[in-house]
Amino acid sequence: MSGNTFGEILKLTTFGESHGPATGGVIEGFPAGLAVSRDEVQIELNKRRPGQSKYVSQRNETDELEILSGVFEGKSLGTPIGFLVRNNDSRPEDYDHLKNVYRPSHADYTYDKKYGLRDHRGGGRSSARETLARVVGGAFANIILREHGTEVIAYVEQIGNEKINTDYKSLNLGLIEESPLRCPDEDAERRMKELIERISAEGDTLGGKVVCVIRNCMPGLGEPVFDRLEAELAKAMLSINAVKGFEIGSGFSAADMKGSGHNDIFEEVDGRIITKTNFSGGVQGGI
Amino acid sequence: MSGNTFGEILKLTTFGESHGPATGGVIEGFPAGLAVSRDEVQIELNKRRPGQSKYVSQRNETDELEILSGVFEGKSLGTPIGFLVRNNDSRPEDYDHLKNVYRPSHADYTYDKKYGLRDHRGGGRSSARETLARVVGGAFANIILREHGTEVIAYVEQIGNEKINTDYKSLNLGLIEESPLRCPDEDAERRMKELIERISAEGDTLGGKVVCVIRNCMPGLGEPVFDRLEAELAKAMLSINAVKGFEIGSGFSAADMKGSGHNDIFEEVDGRIITKTNFSGGVQGGI
Amino acid sequence: MSGNTFGEILKLTTFGESHGPATGGVIEGFPAGLAVSRDEVQIELNKRRPGQSKYVSQRNETDELEILSGVFEGKSLGTPIGFLVRNNDSRPEDYDHLKNVYRPSHADYTYDKKYGLRDHRGGGRSSARETLARVVGGAFANIILREHGTEVIAYVEQIGNEKINTDYKSLNLGLIEESPLRCPDEDAERRMKELIERISAEGDTLGGKVVCVIRNCMPGLGEPVFDRLEAELAKAMLSINAVKGFEIGSGFSAADMKGSGHNDIFEEVDGRIITKTNFSGGVQGGI
Amino acid sequence: MSGNTFGEILKLTTFGESHGPATGGVIEGFPAGLAVSRDEVQIELNKRRPGQSKYVSQRNETDELEILSGVFEGKSLGTPIGFLVRNNDSRPEDYDHLKNVYRPSHADYTYDKKYGLRDHRGGGRSSARETLARVVGGAFANIILREHGTEVIAYVEQIGNEKINTDYKSLNLGLIEESPLRCPDEDAERRMKELIERISAEGDTLGGKVVCVIRNCMPGLGEPVFDRLEAELAKAMLSINAVKGFEIGSGFSAADMKGSGHNDIFEEVDGRIITKTNFSGGVQGGI
Repeated sequence: MSGNTFGEILKLTTFGESHGPATGGVIEGFPAGLAVSRDEVQIELNKRRPGQSKYVSQRNETDELEILSGVFEGKSLGTPIGFLVRNNDSRPEDYDHLKNVYRPSHADYTYDKKYGLRDHRGGGRSSARETLARVVGGAFANIILREHGTEVIAYVEQIGNEKINTDYKSLNLGLIEESPLRCPDEDAERRMKELIERISAEGDTLGGKVVCVIRNCMPGLGEPVFDRLEAELAKAMLSINAVKGFEIGSGFSAADMKGSGHNDIFEEVDGRIITKTNFSGGVQGGI
Repeated sequence: MSGNTFGEILKLTTFGESHGPATGGVIEGFPAGLAVSRDEVQIELNKRRPGQSKYVSQRNETDELEILSGVFEGKSLGTPIGFLVRNNDSRPEDYDHLKNVYRPSHADYTYDKKYGLRDHRGGGRSSARETLARVVGGAFANIILREHGTEVIAYVEQIGNEKINTDYKSLNLGLIEESPLRCPDEDAERRMKELIERISAEGDTLGGKVVCVIRNCMPGLGEPVFDRLEAELAKAMLSINAVKGFEIGSGFSAADMKGSGHNDIFEEVDGRIITKTNFSGGVQGGI
Repeated sequence: MSGNTFGEILKLTTFGESHGPATGGVIEGFPAGLAVSRDEVQIELNKRRPGQSKYVSQRNETDELEILSGVFEGKSLGTPIGFLVRNNDSRPEDYDHLKNVYRPSHADYTYDKKYGLRDHRGGGRSSARETLARVVGGAFANIILREHGTEVIAYVEQIGNEKINTDYKSLNLGLIEESPLRCPDEDAERRMKELIERISAEGDTLGGKVVCVIRNCMPGLGEPVFDRLEAELAKAMLSINAVKGFEIGSGFSAADMKGSGHNDIFEEVDGRIITKTNFSGGVQGGI
Repeated sequence: MSGNTFGEILKLTTFGESHGPATGGVIEGFPAGLAVSRDEVQIELNKRRPGQSKYVSQRNETDELEILSGVFEGKSLGTPIGFLVRNNDSRPEDYDHLKNVYRPSHADYTYDKKYGLRDHRGGGRSSARETLARVVGGAFANIILREHGTEVIAYVEQIGNEKINTDYKSLNLGLIEESPLRCPDEDAERRMKELIERISAEGDTLGGKVVCVIRNCMPGLGEPVFDRLEAELAKAMLSINAVKGFEIGSGFSAADMKGSGHNDIFEEVDGRIITKTNFSGGVQGGI
């Protein structure tokens, strides 16, 4: 029904149209007493900001984060954290020509059909600018994860038909932050850049694949049977504009495998139980 | 937190361990005044029942559905529909040898870790027997969809490395119900059967892929931004035991495509707006 | 929307019409590893059962509880607890004369208006028999509270114009269980019984007031700002058939009091912080 | 758990500490296409503003509403409505003396106990300033109710021991807006003012009672069994700071009444079914 909230214990509710006054949200369930730095969250927002290199889409925004509540003297209060980012580059008049046009593969038609009217300025609520509030939510979530020693890292594995030809275990993930494409393989990154420049010159765009690696996740996350951890991750990913697929562990390649080869055998290493292989993606029974 | 409920307007809450007294659930939000036949729901349950052919797993259950509330004189009351299926083939003693064993790629270890104890009888709550309550929920959902002329059809496209080599538009989906493998392509089905028999003789099992086709879906379903239709479908699928991936529309093949080639151009046919292609999977902006 | 669920962390979802096959529910969020005895819950159900004395309404039911899941070898599994009670005394034909009649101050008219049809057998879903599932939920909740040393006690303070003339601190609450009216004051109970017998002979019924005392409640319950503890209690009480009012602490008498007289001064007794008076009902800021 | 959200179909989520940067919220489920005027909502906020007469508490705030999303060209978009009010009169230093003090009957102690720290500036999240976001939510709700011809009116019936001696049917409710005390009875208002001035001079404060009249409510609101209309109203009221009781219809006076006298007999007037009396408060079976 409402659809603007994600999460159960830690909850993010977002609002904002692409060219309205502001995009923002409310974070609930954030524990009291954690050190919270606005600047640290701003750094994550800056990574998202369009127009940082010629390889990404262009929009001139400073995306300045303002925290409105829930933080006092550098610490979280346990109360809801309200925040917003002003839409400074809002130029609604640029979009007047879209008022009566349904762009293909955009939400123009379906929003009109569902709501009876729409904000035609840059996609309104359906714009990818909405992910800004998710980045803020994610940066706060990361503060909690860090307390538990959990690390979440994502990188670009493929753009068009150019891809990294090895898996995450052989990559130096420390290179991600230095790469404008967030690709930790220098050879692949060079090929991707050339491809983007060529396709971009044709006035066209490209698809891609992203890999996410979660390290040292606390056991016990995920709520059987419907809110299994992989189910929540799949929902989160598919709720992002333009995402068309999700795999965990062996993913679609599991179709070709025999049960005997797909089993993750348990072993004890240094008093900790782990699995020799990881076809299940680190999740069993949704936990 | 609880994780046993799926849906917002129409809601299914389930309970039941594999070898406990019963598996069942509560359906809320089912509209009042619709004709409901227990036998019709039983037919769907029968399709799910293991042990119906040599190609599927074996368990001897009649899986008799009992509706406990919400239906009166053949019509829904608008009140919650409670239902259960007794676990007649419950033989807990068969599982005594699993009491202190963590089976690989099963939920034994993670349940122990999360709850501090577990029901070792056939997986308990983590058993695939839990999908029984989902079938009942789905059969009730289908009564509503039928009122809107919406059809949901699923078939097996691939088992191991044997697959159907054409897409759903070229298949006679009417053959699905006649096929013990629910595969509407006779040649592929023959190859799959041979493969299953061979691997089965080796004491091994196989993975596969399922395709789902939804026809004549009412426009407007899906709630931006987090509860987009494709996000809810992805969650539903990944919440099923052993599912490792989900694609919609062009899926992962979109990575290789240019934006220009991926756009679904609108056209008007017989006064209805449709798209020439369907790379987006029938959903735009999550609706 | 659905309205059949109460609670957030510990959740009860109920189903059942008065004269349908069964009344039951699902309890979610019950911790794993607690000792659960069916018989102990049955004792609470027995207290609720009508027809136990001439002072209460008559219906001949054994109200036998069946636990369907979530409990294994006498311990909770952390999985949902499904349960039901069969409606043995179901005699739908007794209610045929009500098919086209709207009883005053019953839900007959409003259910018809909302759902377009109704189960006329004894009120269907709107019958007070629905509280049976609440008693089961409450009995399970009590198992958790007991672990924390928290005690919840309720008694009848007033029936018609006959009342107990002292407050809970001066009463021997141990007498409640021995009293057929659950009234711990012998003099008041005698007056109430006489009144009930007289009014009952006239074919009429009476209202009343119930007092609930919660002792040794763990601090921290209640979620500001909307889910304050007193707000949840008020909702719970007003969701019971025929309840017309709720007070906490000083209640409506606070209207006549000055702020200076209403303040609960803190004091430290045996290293524990308590308040000298309790006009706020033990809750401050909703916690 | 989170506790900052009220409502199911129409939802309000709020944030803000009394002396933090801003108080605000997100309204979800507001229908698309309704005319929304910021100024109209501001008028309701102005009514709430402290310091408007000598009879109410003092705080110098302009309480300027800013709508951040969900409204475009004077119409609602169906997307979430984000809003905020800056806390201009924020003078945290005024509250430094409260840093280590637990004020009696305030949330200071319980917040510390629950969260381990608190914002001591004017009560922080527990301050009555939080109701500001509720007024905005209510003003938006009222736009919807108006479309249905439903009117919600509230007035002050009692302050201290001074009260209106007649019920709402004999009052001219049109006088409410002209009265600084929102009391529609001139004689009672005069007595209340004298009482307030006297008690105020003593440096003390007073309690009171508010009556709410809802006219022409659409039938069908309220969701049995837990989310009955009266249960939701009770929760809403008890979630407001300092509220200690709630009654509907006959309220606590029902305890003294016989069932025969409490029944609301149906009658048909001008083709519409109404009840002769209204002991049930206009709600039957929670609907």
